[in-house]
Amino acid sequence: MLEKSFINSLRESVGRKNVLTKKEDLICYSYDPTMNHHLPEAVVIPGTIEEVALVLKLANEAGVPVTPRGGGTNTTGASIPIRGGIVLAMHRFDRIIEIDTANLCAVVEAGVITQDFQRQVEELGLFYPPDPQGLDMSTLGGNLATNASGPRGFKYGITRDYVLGFKMALPDGRILKVGGKTVKNVTGYDLTKLFVGSEGTFGVFTELILRLIPLPESKRTMLVIFDDLMAAARTVSAVIQAKIIPTTLEFMDKEAMRVIEGYDPCGLPIDSAAALLIEVDGSERDVPAQMVHIEEVCRREGAREIRIATTEAEAAQLWKARKLAFAAMAKVAPTLYVEDVTVPRSKIPDMVKTISELALKYRLKICILGHTGDGNMHPLILTDERNEEEIQRVRLAIDEIFKAALEMGGTLTGEHGIGMEKIKYMEWELGATGVDVMRKIKQALDPNDIMNPSKVLPAEAAE
Amino acid sequence: MLEKSFINSLRESVGRKNVLTKKEDLICYSYDPTMNHHLPEAVVIPGTIEEVALVLKLANEAGVPVTPRGGGTNTTGASIPIRGGIVLAMHRFDRIIEIDTANLCAVVEAGVITQDFQRQVEELGLFYPPDPQGLDMSTLGGNLATNASGPRGFKYGITRDYVLGFKMALPDGRILKVGGKTVKNVTGYDLTKLFVGSEGTFGVFTELILRLIPLPESKRTMLVIFDDLMAAARTVSAVIQAKIIPTTLEFMDKEAMRVIEGYDPCGLPIDSAAALLIEVDGSERDVPAQMVHIEEVCRREGAREIRIATTEAEAAQLWKARKLAFAAMAKVAPTLYVEDVTVPRSKIPDMVKTISELALKYRLKICILGHTGDGNMHPLILTDERNEEEIQRVRLAIDEIFKAALEMGGTLTGEHGIGMEKIKYMEWELGATGVDVMRKIKQALDPNDIMNPSKVLPAEAAE
Repeated sequence: MLEKSFINSLRESVGRKNVLTKKEDLICYSYDPTMNHHLPEAVVIPGTIEEVALVLKLANEAGVPVTPRGGGTNTTGASIPIRGGIVLAMHRFDRIIEIDTANLCAVVEAGVITQDFQRQVEELGLFYPPDPQGLDMSTLGGNLATNASGPRGFKYGITRDYVLGFKMALPDGRILKVGGKTVKNVTGYDLTKLFVGSEGTFGVFTELILRLIPLPESKRTMLVIFDDLMAAARTVSAVIQAKIIPTTLEFMDKEAMRVIEGYDPCGLPIDSAAALLIEVDGSERDVPAQMVHIEEVCRREGAREIRIATTEAEAAQLWKARKLAFAAMAKVAPTLYVEDVTVPRSKIPDMVKTISELALKYRLKICILGHTGDGNMHPLILTDERNEEEIQRVRLAIDEIFKAALEMGGTLTGEHGIGMEKIKYMEWELGATGVDVMRKIKQALDPNDIMNPSKVLPAEAAE
Repeated sequence: MLEKSFINSLRESVGRKNVLTKKEDLICYSYDPTMNHHLPEAVVIPGTIEEVALVLKLANEAGVPVTPRGGGTNTTGASIPIRGGIVLAMHRFDRIIEIDTANLCAVVEAGVITQDFQRQVEELGLFYPPDPQGLDMSTLGGNLATNASGPRGFKYGITRDYVLGFKMALPDGRILKVGGKTVKNVTGYDLTKLFVGSEGTFGVFTELILRLIPLPESKRTMLVIFDDLMAAARTVSAVIQAKIIPTTLEFMDKEAMRVIEGYDPCGLPIDSAAALLIEVDGSERDVPAQMVHIEEVCRREGAREIRIATTEAEAAQLWKARKLAFAAMAKVAPTLYVEDVTVPRSKIPDMVKTISELALKYRLKICILGHTGDGNMHPLILTDERNEEEIQRVRLAIDEIFKAALEMGGTLTGEHGIGMEKIKYMEWELGATGVDVMRKIKQALDPNDIMNPSKVLPAEAAE
């Protein structure tokens, strides 16, 4: 329980109306898309970096946990206040301060919604490529905290690649400013890259400097349909071996397409085994040639049919199906586990095969979606958390999926992060040494462990 | 002085012939292209990561400083063993272990020469873009340690952007393995990005996983000549405002061109005020259109003449001039200060003007070269270290150059790093908080301060 005097100090710091303590308010900040939830003791809604710094200083002195929250869209429990304390809601930081067309960058506050920012940038002929699934609700600060990414990560790189600098409040109440408007900067250690993806465990981003690139002149979308699951999986590698880098290379298996069609018919080929949704972009001169080249590779690898969107509306229709996937699955299954393993792309056929075998072995319904261009696979396990026996099988299957991915030279998580959900697997990937090095950095930067505690790193073994 | 028993332990660890202690051998590892030098007490030449780990463990226990050394080409004193102890020479780590065309990556040892690697990769139609000036002598491990970069950083990104993972020996003798062959990986904090650019102060890279991209089909080079220095500087911004991203956009002022022509006549227009060396690459369809577009912008901004290389030999001739610059300057001046400030590109005209004014104010000969596409400027101060009074003026001019760059929103160093040379300016850019955060990370990872001590960070103020 937070002491009355502490709550009063918070109110003095950010204004009475920006500190919520009623249960009905706290509930709104207690959950995310995972099955985890925990009530905070207070929700604090600061308006300036100085206020954020002051709240952190108070919390640090009192040993109160602080969990920063953007749009709450992450899929690993990273924004759940699992140890109570304060949720720091960042939605008042909603200004796009500057879009600098001369220096191809923008200065924005951390609470700006990703999609709003992208639209404004695109109106100026510029492009901010990172496109995490929840971008209509997620904030840029949250994207940075989790290093969120999406289909376009394959060609254009991930969120971290677009961060030039930021302002951050540190747990002891100091303000840190790193980076700037230059792409090159090697002044000391790269705190920018380290802090991006640290899931709110080092401090709180308030202002971000993001890199932009020119908007590609042209883009085209195609859906490539396969009667053989393995042929679809192999085609991903074949496209890249042919030295083509599409913007996106999305994989959907039969199960996934059936669920989507059952939810909202989009014309997906449910009689096929798998499909690839491929987008290319570039100059008007270049895009048609890329399309032809990709078509050749797909046919050689055994594609049954290639549907090319000839209008923007047709392309939007193809993308709609892909984007509906999560909603469709959430409708047919009370509980949905969204996993996020990533393997070297040449291992995609092996990973698809492994997942299919595990679905049989553990009698589970698993759909496979994936940003396969970069080997990022999303096995989606459709289940019901009330069925304890089945959940037990789900957990065993997930363990085996991760084990297989690591054996293939992959990683636990390509874009979702660790949060609470994957802590137990950290040592599998990083070994005791890797975890220990990360823990030493965390202890150095947040010695009282107030910043989003019990996230990312496993608890230290008792002495 | 290292104790005899310690030297014997080193010999047992790596073999007698791989521990050098004779003065004539030590001298070879005591300097770099800066004016700094300091003799190590021993040079150790390990052959495996286990040997590196063992040497670090011994040094850590004995409190002996260790300075890792690649090609010794860095320009900031980063590889000088300024506190004596051991130089760890990495040239036996010279194997390209694998070039993985399916996953567009390579596994290499840290001592491989950058250019050798690039050539092998290009033979397979792939591309490793980072191109630091000294790439015919520098090692990939050294490039990672300093996050070295070059002209192509503008379009393709810097060394850090091409590192997917590595193996490293830590100061306590443990072995750390992070990352892998996947582009996406958000398993915990991004140690890969943090350790790249840490200038050997955290540990020693032994094996690297580097990202590759398809080699562009086509490239073209042009030299654009201006009678007005400011028009040349403004053209850089104008090209980018026109949403063209050339591969390189190199700036040379009149002084630089005259020195180069005096050294080896290459046909540079020494009667002009400045020139831009511009290269574009991409598909065969795209490159000619980009060239036309750039020509238009350059003429609009007042270019006097545009020379387009029509053959590879002509392009090589244009690049030869640029690459001769350092050798030419080293010949005319006994001492050369190569600075490396970077400003947001829209500030390039201001920075050029400031540098010219400072050359007048302090009566110095300063040439300006720059990878101006990303605002990275290299003011080159031609002087003589025996002239103490002039060196005093050089130091004042450098202080003012950095002050001006920071006021323009720039950074102390775009690609050279901090080493010993820029430590005194760290707080100017990062503030006390930024330096303190970096120091806490260093102390957490190397508590006995054996890894390349007295580099990057200013000494802590005495209590």
